[in-house]
This record gives sequence, structure tokens and C-alpha cells, in this order.
Amino acid sequence: MTAAAPRPQRNLNVPGLVAALQKILKADQVSTNAGIRDRHGHDESYHESHAPDVVVFPESTEEVSAIAKVAAEFGAPVIPFGVGTSLEGHVAALDGGISIDMGRMNKVIEVNADDLDVKVQAGVTRKALNAYIKDQGLFFPIDPGADATIGGMTATRASGTNAVRYGTMRENVLGLTVVLADGRIIQTGGRSRKSAAGYDLTRLFVGSEGTLGIITEIRLRLYGVPEAMAAAVANFPDIGSAVNTVIRTIQAGVPVARIELLDEVQIDAINKYSKLNFAVRPTLFFEFHGTETGVAEQSALVNEIGAEFGMSDFNWTSKAEDRNKMWQARHDAFYAGLALRPGAKGWPTDVCVPISRLANCILETKADVAASGLLTPLVGHVGDGNFHLCIILNPDDAEEAARAKALTDRLAHRAIAMGGTCTGEHGIGYGKIPFLEAEHGSAVAVMRQLKTTLDPDNRMNPGKIFRA
Amino acid sequence: MTAAAPRPQRNLNVPGLVAALQKILKADQVSTNAGIRDRHGHDESYHESHAPDVVVFPESTEEVSAIAKVAAEFGAPVIPFGVGTSLEGHVAALDGGISIDMGRMNKVIEVNADDLDVKVQAGVTRKALNAYIKDQGLFFPIDPGADATIGGMTATRASGTNAVRYGTMRENVLGLTVVLADGRIIQTGGRSRKSAAGYDLTRLFVGSEGTLGIITEIRLRLYGVPEAMAAAVANFPDIGSAVNTVIRTIQAGVPVARIELLDEVQIDAINKYSKLNFAVRPTLFFEFHGTETGVAEQSALVNEIGAEFGMSDFNWTSKAEDRNKMWQARHDAFYAGLALRPGAKGWPTDVCVPISRLANCILETKADVAASGLLTPLVGHVGDGNFHLCIILNPDDAEEAARAKALTDRLAHRAIAMGGTCTGEHGIGYGKIPFLEAEHGSAVAVMRQLKTTLDPDNRMNPGKIFRA
Repeated sequence: MTAAAPRPQRNLNVPGLVAALQKILKADQVSTNAGIRDRHGHDESYHESHAPDVVVFPESTEEVSAIAKVAAEFGAPVIPFGVGTSLEGHVAALDGGISIDMGRMNKVIEVNADDLDVKVQAGVTRKALNAYIKDQGLFFPIDPGADATIGGMTATRASGTNAVRYGTMRENVLGLTVVLADGRIIQTGGRSRKSAAGYDLTRLFVGSEGTLGIITEIRLRLYGVPEAMAAAVANFPDIGSAVNTVIRTIQAGVPVARIELLDEVQIDAINKYSKLNFAVRPTLFFEFHGTETGVAEQSALVNEIGAEFGMSDFNWTSKAEDRNKMWQARHDAFYAGLALRPGAKGWPTDVCVPISRLANCILETKADVAASGLLTPLVGHVGDGNFHLCIILNPDDAEEAARAKALTDRLAHRAIAMGGTCTGEHGIGYGKIPFLEAEHGSAVAVMRQLKTTLDPDNRMNPGKIFRA
Repeated sequence: MTAAAPRPQRNLNVPGLVAALQKILKADQVSTNAGIRDRHGHDESYHESHAPDVVVFPESTEEVSAIAKVAAEFGAPVIPFGVGTSLEGHVAALDGGISIDMGRMNKVIEVNADDLDVKVQAGVTRKALNAYIKDQGLFFPIDPGADATIGGMTATRASGTNAVRYGTMRENVLGLTVVLADGRIIQTGGRSRKSAAGYDLTRLFVGSEGTLGIITEIRLRLYGVPEAMAAAVANFPDIGSAVNTVIRTIQAGVPVARIELLDEVQIDAINKYSKLNFAVRPTLFFEFHGTETGVAEQSALVNEIGAEFGMSDFNWTSKAEDRNKMWQARHDAFYAGLALRPGAKGWPTDVCVPISRLANCILETKADVAASGLLTPLVGHVGDGNFHLCIILNPDDAEEAARAKALTDRLAHRAIAMGGTCTGEHGIGYGKIPFLEAEHGSAVAVMRQLKTTLDPDNRMNPGKIFRA
């Protein structure tokens, strides 16, 4: 377990704070119930839980602004909360304070089908959004696996399986409504596809993990559902061959929609968890989007490349049912890994490297895993150069946790040394702070300057991204 | 003419500043020659020229850092200069100071063909870059028309004809080396295709127009030259039909590489200037990239859509020579407009609106142009919802300039009211400052806070983006 560093005391007047919040909100919008507070103190990861002092449930941007003003008055920390599917302890209230649960801000505000954009409140989940727009032939592709909120995905710069084709939240957020530390409400971005008007505040808040302000509304790009979609599963004699097939596919410019690697440990886990019978070998899951001929062309190209690397069983399907079963199994990979060892917790990593370094990075990491003796399925959005080890560990075994920490440290530094990043999509939270400086050097001081400018009292999700 | 607002005096010790610069640079790297200073005080637009006190020609990031430290010591403004093709007075030394000409920082530092990325010094022009990487089957698509430097394109968040398919500089810059106001050197971004590690400083500097720091090196995404490319020219009975063809093409998700509108005034101008004989009617120029079948498929789809709107003469060619002639004429559109009225200057606008509003925006604007009595060819990257009026005016005629100003004011506010932007790609410079607040409201105060944090003495390209 990563224990939270000792935090400075804030001497928060909790009863006064709660009373002030109750004054501006309805009774059922403010809770100090221990169970509710506990549920808001942790995410899905192994990180230690830190319950907030109070949880609020705003229903509008104006209410969030009013909450921020009360928080400023009392010097209280503010931690936005979506559905708690983050993986680096993002929602932990390290210094106590107010958890702002965005769950009631779950409205799709406006769909512009003609312009392929939509405006949603931050608490809308990606599945809810896709269900809402499906009938209009539209979809929102960013898919981190969990049914996260759009607000949380924006705050962590999420991506996932479709990013190789459609980009990440960075590329797909057109604009934001943000409540600042002092309660000011600003609008960033706009509805046009491009703009050269002033600083790109949208991109500054995307990935800021709640440390600069509270994202309350998001305008997103949408896409028309492709005319044709097809998926394929292929397995390989060894993991190097699978990765080299990925590298060549990307370098050839094949516009795959998804290209996911699962190692033999992960395949075994999902076979057991999802009652499937994939060959227990390094495997790639593909998805192709386009016109009928485009999809056939892409598939043929990949088949050709894979053949050079001993690919077998390139099982292609354009049936939605088969596709859904395959991707559901992929999405359940984290839970499938956990099920290998009942009672264990998952410690997922998410380095990302330039595609040409991916084979080296994975092979060195697999050797390191073998030496560590740890149970770690490997799965990844390899088209982006991004992969996950998920260390399945007993968090109460200090020796095992130390081995896990050493493994993840080496992995992060390996990726950074290859020109990559310690986190492709999960964010820094409070779990990856030591790597930020290794990756960005003197630029971290500039990030801190921006943080201090917008949050001089360090009350916006304190202890995340930066230790101070 | 837009006269520069009166500027506060800085009481700059110019002889002392020049002597200090001569101490850290070679003799031929520092110039106070009047002709050289004049050339660095203006761009290609109608904006008034303001010569700097001194021009320096650094050859490395370290030299830029040393220059920044001298500038800080003397309280001198610093204005980065590429090749002077900006259009909103970006390079004008409104408060005097140092123009940093990046022309000698013209090296391609590193090409990673396997990862489709490249690192260049800021003074490399887009044509020089493309010439350098051509033999490796690679290209950099962002094409604002002029042969601008990559540094200038980054600083203004440039886009141009290919943006509808490949995005703008926002999407294609992977990382930067930046020299800050106090001389600190930072690296932003990295080589991996995505990262969730900390604030997106790269996107903060892209489009910051030299007001936050000096961009000295840029890492860019590259693309493989498509297997097939084809172009087509089509004309229409009226401009509404042409624009509706564009709207339907984009809404249908056809991945056109370029889709440009030229009105009959602009077509007449390029016929004369480039000795061509296009029908003098509203016209679209298309380009398609992809596989052979993909390009044929895209072209067929556009032909089908256009037919519904009376499109004629869909002249398709896959000959590189014909394509180049057509795009050269398109790129010369600004100069062709100027040639309609010898001695005149060009006042180009560049609003961008959501695609569904494009027809309304253009039709209302054309009516407004007719009422104004001004000569204004219209051309645009309409797939993005972006178009240019280029007002061809006698800058010394105050009455005509006032009519032009009124027309551009109405156009900017029309675009903003439609959910668009006052500037799709040229930037704010000192010409569009009044529109920034109209577009971004209270978010402008946040932009100013960031500016003050990184440039407390307001020495980095002062008077651009913000008046103060």
C-alpha cells in the first residue's frame, strides 16, 4: 500500500462548514453520513482511502459556484467526484474537506447532430451519453473501459481502446464550463472546430485532475456511427511477434479503430472470468471502422502484416453480438485479473512509449515481471504505445507491496527513458507524483506556478499532481 | 489603417541594451541597421509598422536564453520573428525592444520515421521541412498558404487547407522547447502519442503568440504520404449551393483532405493573376487522400452530394502537376486579390463557425459586403467552417478604412453569435483584441492571470492578445 504522506493540518471548522453548506443547498444535498463519506474517499485502485468531511450533491453550475464560495470562506479543500473509477487515488480527501459528487448533474444539455457536437453536465457517464445519442446515428468514441463520467474523463485526460483512431479527451473536448477556486464561472473554447483566439484554456483544464477548478459542463465532439464495423481476434507464437504486428500496422498508416494486446496471463484470466475459450497465447483484438470496402481493405492489410509474424486464427466477424462479447471481456480484464486471486487488489500501471520502442519496453518489462515473482496480467492499447501491467497483490503484505513498488518504479523510468510517459491515461493523482519531475523536469515548476495562480490556497484537490 | 494605441514609455536604455547583447553574441548576430529594423516591424497585413530597437539572430536555444536574461536585466520587450507572414501585426514592436529573428535556427534536429515524428528548430519553414522529409515518404500537412516558419505557425496556432483532415497546429505539436521571460529553458510534452502526466503546457504555448515565452524547438507529428491523391474542381450556380455541398460532405463524414471555397470575385482574381480560366462562378477545390479505392469512393460520394446542389464540371485529376497548379493558384489568392487594385493593401478576416451555420454566415456576410461597396474576394477552408474575406483597400483613405472596420466588426460579432470564433487561424495579434472579450468573456481574466504569472513585467510581445 502507498500510505499517504503526512498532510499539514488545516484546522477546518467542519460544523461551521456543514451548516454553511446546508444554508445554500437542500437537506438531501449535504451528507456527513459515515458510509457516504467513506464511499467518496477512494477509487478502484489499491490506494489508501481518505474520507472527506462532507459530501455535497449539486444540481447546477451555479450551485457548484456557491459551494466553492463557501469552501473559500472556510479554507476548505474541494474534491470533485464522478463515479470513483479513477486509479491513482484522485478522489481521496487527503486533507479532508468537501467532496463534490457530480452524480446529479447528469443531463445531456444539447445535441447538435448537424455539427457533431454535444454539451453535457459533468456527471453524465459515457454509456449514458452513448445511449442518449444512439438513435441519431451518433457516438462518442472515448472508452476507458469503466463507465466513467465525462467530467472525470475530462479531468484525467482519459483515453482507452478507441484512442488510436479517435484521439483522447484532449482531442475531443471542444469547450468547458469551469468553476474556479473563488467561485468564478468561466466558459472555455467554443463550438467551431478550430480557433486561434487567445490561450487554450480548454486544454489546460483537460487533465488538470481537479487541481485548478471544478469542471461542471463539457462540450464534446461526436462522430457518425461508421457504415461498417468489424472485429478480429488473432494470436501469436510470442509477445514480440504480436507487438511487431502492431508496430508495422501503425507505421503502415492502417486506420484501425482499436488494436489491443493481451498477454497469455490476461487471456487465461478472461477465459476464466468471462467463460471464454481463447487460445492461451499472446493475442490481439482488432476493430475496424469505415465503409464496407474500407473495412475489408484494412482487414486484408493487417492479415498480410500479421502473416509475416506467425499470426494465426485471424477470426474476423462483423456481427455486433460477437464484437460486443469480445469487448466486454476486454473491459472486464481488470476484474478478471483480480478474480485470479480472491481478496487481492489491483495496482495498474499505464506507461506509454513511442511506437518504435514498444517491443523493447514490453519485452524488458516481461523479463522484469518474471524476476519479480508477481502476478501481473498485461493488456494494452498498443496502437498508442500504451500498455497496462496490473499487479494483483495482497495489499497487506508489505514485502509484496515493496516488490510491486520497485517493479512499477523501474517501469515508469524505463518508459520515460524511451521518450515516453509514466502515465498514458490514468493521470498522476497521488500515486505517481514522484515520476512527474522525472518526466517533465524544470517544466514542473511552471505547472506549479499556474497552480498557485489559480488556486493560491491549495484547496483544489490538494495533494494531487503535486505533493505540496 | 488601425493606428496603434498609445503605449506606455519604458525608458529603455537602448545603447546599454545593444552593448550587452553584443557581449553575448557575435558581431553579425546583432543589428541596429534601420532597414533591418524596419523589415522586422511589420507583417504582411495592413497593420502599422513598429520597428524594434534592435534585431538579434540567435543560433541556439542557449543563445535565446542568454538574450532573454539580458532583456530581463534591461526591462526590454522581446518579440519573436519568423519570416513575417503573420496577419494581425504580431511582430510589430509596439513598445520597441528586441526582435528575435529565428531565421538562423533552421535545422531539422531529428527525424523519427518509425514513430512519425520530427524535432525542428523554430526557424525551419514548412516547405523546407517537407523538402527534407520527402525522400522518406513522409509529409507535414499543416499548410497556411505562406511558407511560414514552424515556430510562427506554432505561436499562432496556424492551420490552413489541410486542417479539415489533419487538424491544426494544436493537434500536431507533440512538444516544445520554450525560453521563458526570465531565461529559464523548459521542455514540454514528449514523444509518446498521449500522456496524462500533469498540465498540458504544450497546448498553453501553442497559440500564445509569443506572449508567454519564446518557442525555440518544436516536435511535430508527421504522416506517411498517402498511397493515392486526387483533386477536383467544381462550380455552382450560387454560393449557397456550394456551401451546402460542403456542409453535407462534412456531415456525411467523407474524410476529404481539403475542401476550399472561392467566390466569383476570388476566381476572377486568380484567373487574372495566375493566368487560368476557371468559370467565374462560386467554386470548390477538393483534394482526396487515401488508398486508390478510398479516394475513388470519396470522390464518388462528393459527386453524388454535389449533384443535388447543381454542381457542374467536377473535373477530377490525379496528376500531381494539375494538383500543384491548382493549389498554387489557391495559395496565391491573397496576392491575386491585391493585384486587382495596384497599391492597395489586404485586410484579411478569418472567422470560423459551426458547420451548420456556415451557409447563413456566408450569405449574410456577402449581403453585408454588397452593401459596403468594398472589394472583397472570399475564400475559405470551409470544411472547418472557416472562411476569409480579404478586403482590398486603400489604407490611406480614412473613410474606406472606416467602412472596412465596420464590416469586419460586424463579421466577427456575427461569427461569435453563431457559436464561432473571431479568428480561426490568424490569431489575435494587436488587430483583434476588441473581439477577444466578446468571444471569451470572463475567461479572458484567467488568460491575463496566466500571462502575469509567466511574464510579470509584460515584456513578452507586449500589446498582443491583451492591450495592457
